[in-house]
Amino acid sequence: MLQGKVLIAQGGGPTAVINQSLVGAVQEARRWNAEGIYGALHGVSGIINETMVDLGQESDANLERVAATPCSALGSTRDKPDLAYCQEIFKVLQAHGIGTFFYIGGNDSSDTLRILSEEAVKANYGLRCVHIPKTIDNDLMINDHTPGFPSAARFVASAFAGVNLDNRALPGVYVGVVMGRHAGFLTAASALARKYHDDGPHLIYLPERSFDMDTFATDVQAAYDKFGRCVIAVSEGVHDVEGTPIVTKLAKDVEHDAHGNVQLSGTGALADLLTDAIKAQTSISRVRGDTFGYLQRSFLGCVSAVDQLEAREVGIKAVQYAATAGRDGSVTIHRVGDYAVEYRLTALDEVAGKTKVMDDSLIAASGNDVTPAFMDYARPLVGSDMPEACRLEAPAVAKA
Amino acid sequence: MLQGKVLIAQGGGPTAVINQSLVGAVQEARRWNAEGIYGALHGVSGIINETMVDLGQESDANLERVAATPCSALGSTRDKPDLAYCQEIFKVLQAHGIGTFFYIGGNDSSDTLRILSEEAVKANYGLRCVHIPKTIDNDLMINDHTPGFPSAARFVASAFAGVNLDNRALPGVYVGVVMGRHAGFLTAASALARKYHDDGPHLIYLPERSFDMDTFATDVQAAYDKFGRCVIAVSEGVHDVEGTPIVTKLAKDVEHDAHGNVQLSGTGALADLLTDAIKAQTSISRVRGDTFGYLQRSFLGCVSAVDQLEAREVGIKAVQYAATAGRDGSVTIHRVGDYAVEYRLTALDEVAGKTKVMDDSLIAASGNDVTPAFMDYARPLVGSDMPEACRLEAPAVAKA
Repeated sequence: MLQGKVLIAQGGGPTAVINQSLVGAVQEARRWNAEGIYGALHGVSGIINETMVDLGQESDANLERVAATPCSALGSTRDKPDLAYCQEIFKVLQAHGIGTFFYIGGNDSSDTLRILSEEAVKANYGLRCVHIPKTIDNDLMINDHTPGFPSAARFVASAFAGVNLDNRALPGVYVGVVMGRHAGFLTAASALARKYHDDGPHLIYLPERSFDMDTFATDVQAAYDKFGRCVIAVSEGVHDVEGTPIVTKLAKDVEHDAHGNVQLSGTGALADLLTDAIKAQTSISRVRGDTFGYLQRSFLGCVSAVDQLEAREVGIKAVQYAATAGRDGSVTIHRVGDYAVEYRLTALDEVAGKTKVMDDSLIAASGNDVTPAFMDYARPLVGSDMPEACRLEAPAVAKA
Repeated sequence: MLQGKVLIAQGGGPTAVINQSLVGAVQEARRWNAEGIYGALHGVSGIINETMVDLGQESDANLERVAATPCSALGSTRDKPDLAYCQEIFKVLQAHGIGTFFYIGGNDSSDTLRILSEEAVKANYGLRCVHIPKTIDNDLMINDHTPGFPSAARFVASAFAGVNLDNRALPGVYVGVVMGRHAGFLTAASALARKYHDDGPHLIYLPERSFDMDTFATDVQAAYDKFGRCVIAVSEGVHDVEGTPIVTKLAKDVEHDAHGNVQLSGTGALADLLTDAIKAQTSISRVRGDTFGYLQRSFLGCVSAVDQLEAREVGIKAVQYAATAGRDGSVTIHRVGDYAVEYRLTALDEVAGKTKVMDDSLIAASGNDVTPAFMDYARPLVGSDMPEACRLEAPAVAKA
C-alpha cells in the first residue's frame, strides 16, 4: 500500500512526454487507493512555498489531454535543496500528511531526491521517495535511455532531414547546434535524418570528443569538396582538449545557472562562432547556422509513440514500487529485446547526480560521426512512423 | 493545347509544399498530352547550364512521394537573370523545343519570369510563361496568401505553443526570432499559439512597424510584471524608424545576397542582441532567445493540409492556363468564402518584384500585437488538426 498521501512534482527541463509520467503516476495512485494525491507547483519550490494542487480532483478525460501536452504541467524548478531546504520540505510534508513523494526529473532532480531520502532517514521522517526518470539529454546512468529523449531525438532527426533537403536545394554549409552539455546522444540523433548515401549531416561533433577549430575547418572543406555542400550537427557542449567549452571562447560575459553550469542554450553564440570560423578558414561563402534551442524539447506535435508509452509506464511503475518494494529508488529502463524494455527499481545513488555519456562503440573512429551501433540503438526509439524524404528519379536530358 | 515541350523549375527559398506544385504541374501536363516534360535543376541556372531531367519518366507513385517531401526537389537558385542571361536561356529552350515554362517561386522568381516573358516577345521567341506562387513570407501581391505560408505558419504556431508551455514551467523571458524581411505575416502567425488568456506570445514585433529598443524594454518589463513571464515573437526584419535593420546595429560585417539584401537568417545575432538588451535594461535575469532559422521552412512532418491541397492546385491551374488562356501570367489565390478559395491568372507585372506587407487592420494599435482580424485570416490556413495544449484543472490545496 501507499504510505500517507502522495505528492508528485516535476523538476528540470521540460520534455514532450513528462506529463505522460505525471498522469501515469496519478492514475496508478488512484488504483492503489491513495488517501490523497497532491501536485507541488514548480518542483521542490512548490513544497517549501506550500503551493500545491489536489490532483485527486482531476477528471480522467482532462488528465489524458494533459498527458498529450508537452512541458511540465505542474511547472518546474532549478532549485537544488541543501539541508536547510530539506528541513523546510519535511515541515510541509508532515503538515499535510504526505508519506510518498514522486519526483519526475533528470540528474539534478534525482540527486535532490537522494538528499531528501537520506535526510528523511536522519530526521526519522517516514517518507517513501521514488524518482521517475526524464531528460532529453539521455544521460542517466543505468538506463538504456530516458523518457523525453526519443521525442527530442525525433525532433532533431526531422529538423536535420529538412535542412538536408534545404541545403541540397540551395547548396552551402549549414551548422545546426543541438542541446546536450556532456552527453552527445541528442546531437548524434541527427544521423537518423540520413536516407540516401549523400544525405547530411555529413559531420557530427559530440562533447565526448575534444573539438579543435582547425580540424573542424579541414573536415568541413573536405566534406564540401566531396558533396558540393555540407550539413553539420554540433553539440552545444563541445569543448577543447582542456575541457573549456568552445562557446566561452567568444562570449564576453557568460551566464551561470544555480548548479554552476555555463549557459549554453538560449543563445546563438556557438553557431555564429562556428559559421564565422568556416568563412574565415575555408573558401566557402554560403555558410548558415541555426541553434535549435528550446524547440527541441517543447515543440507541439513532435512526439515519439514509443516515448509516450514508456513515459506513461515509468509513472505507473513508480507507484507500484512505492506500494510494494519497501525501499526508495529510481525507476530505470532496460532493453530486453529488439525492441522491448523492462523496468526496474534501482538504488537512488546509482543514478543520482551522475552523468552517462556515449560509449566509444557508438562514436566513429574519425570522431566526427556515429557508428552503425548507434543507429541500431536509436532507430527503434523515435517510432516507426517518421516521415520520409523522397527524391525525383527522372533521368537527365541529353544536352542538345 | 500546350505549346512545345514543357519546362518546370523551382526558385528561391524552399517550402514544405513546393513539390506539391511541381507534381501538380507534371501530372496536369501529362493530361494535356505535353510532348515532353522537363525539369531544370536549380532554377534558371539549370537552363543555362543545360542540366535538366526528363520528368515524363517519373512514375506517379514516386511523384506522390516527392510531393509529400519538403524543399525544392529540382533544387533552387538565387540567380536573377539580366538580358544576357535571358538570351542564354532562349538558346537552350530553342535547342530543346521548349515552348512552355513554369517557374515556381516568390517575388524574385516572378520578376525573373516577367523579364523572360518580355524578352521573349522582343526576341520573337514563342514562349508561354506561367508563374506558380510559393513563399513562406506570404508577401505576393494580389494573392490572399501564398502556398508555403500556411505550413510555415503552422510550424511557427507549434513552436510558440511549445515555448509558451516551457516558459510557463520555468518562467523568464523568451525571444523567438522568425523569418520575414519586409512582411510580418509569419511572425504574426505566432499568435495562433495562444489558447488560454495568459498564453504567449505576449508581445509580437513586426517589420511593418518601426522598432525602438527603449519601448521594447518597457513593453517586456510590463508584460513580465503582469504575467510573471514573457514570450516574445520578433520578425528578423525589424528595423528602426530610419529603416535600418536592428540586426545591423550589432553585426560587424554583414553579409549581402545576390539581390543586395542583408543576411538575416542563418545567424543568431538578432535574438542575442535583444536578450542582451533586456538583461541590460530590465531587472529580469532569466532571458533566453532562439532564432527559428531554416527549420521553419523545411522541417519534416509539419505541414498544413490546406497548404498541401492549394499548392497542388496552383500547379494544376498553371498548366490549364498555359493550355487555354492564351497569355502569360501568375496564378493567384483569392478567398471567396470562409473558408474557400479560387484561382485566377493575373498579369505578371501585377505580382512580379513587388512586396505585400500586413494591412493596418491586422496589426494592433499598440504596434506589438495582431488584431482579431488577423486571427480570422490566419486560422483556417494552418489546418483544423493543430495539436492543442491543455492544462491541469486541479484546485489548490489549502495551506496547512
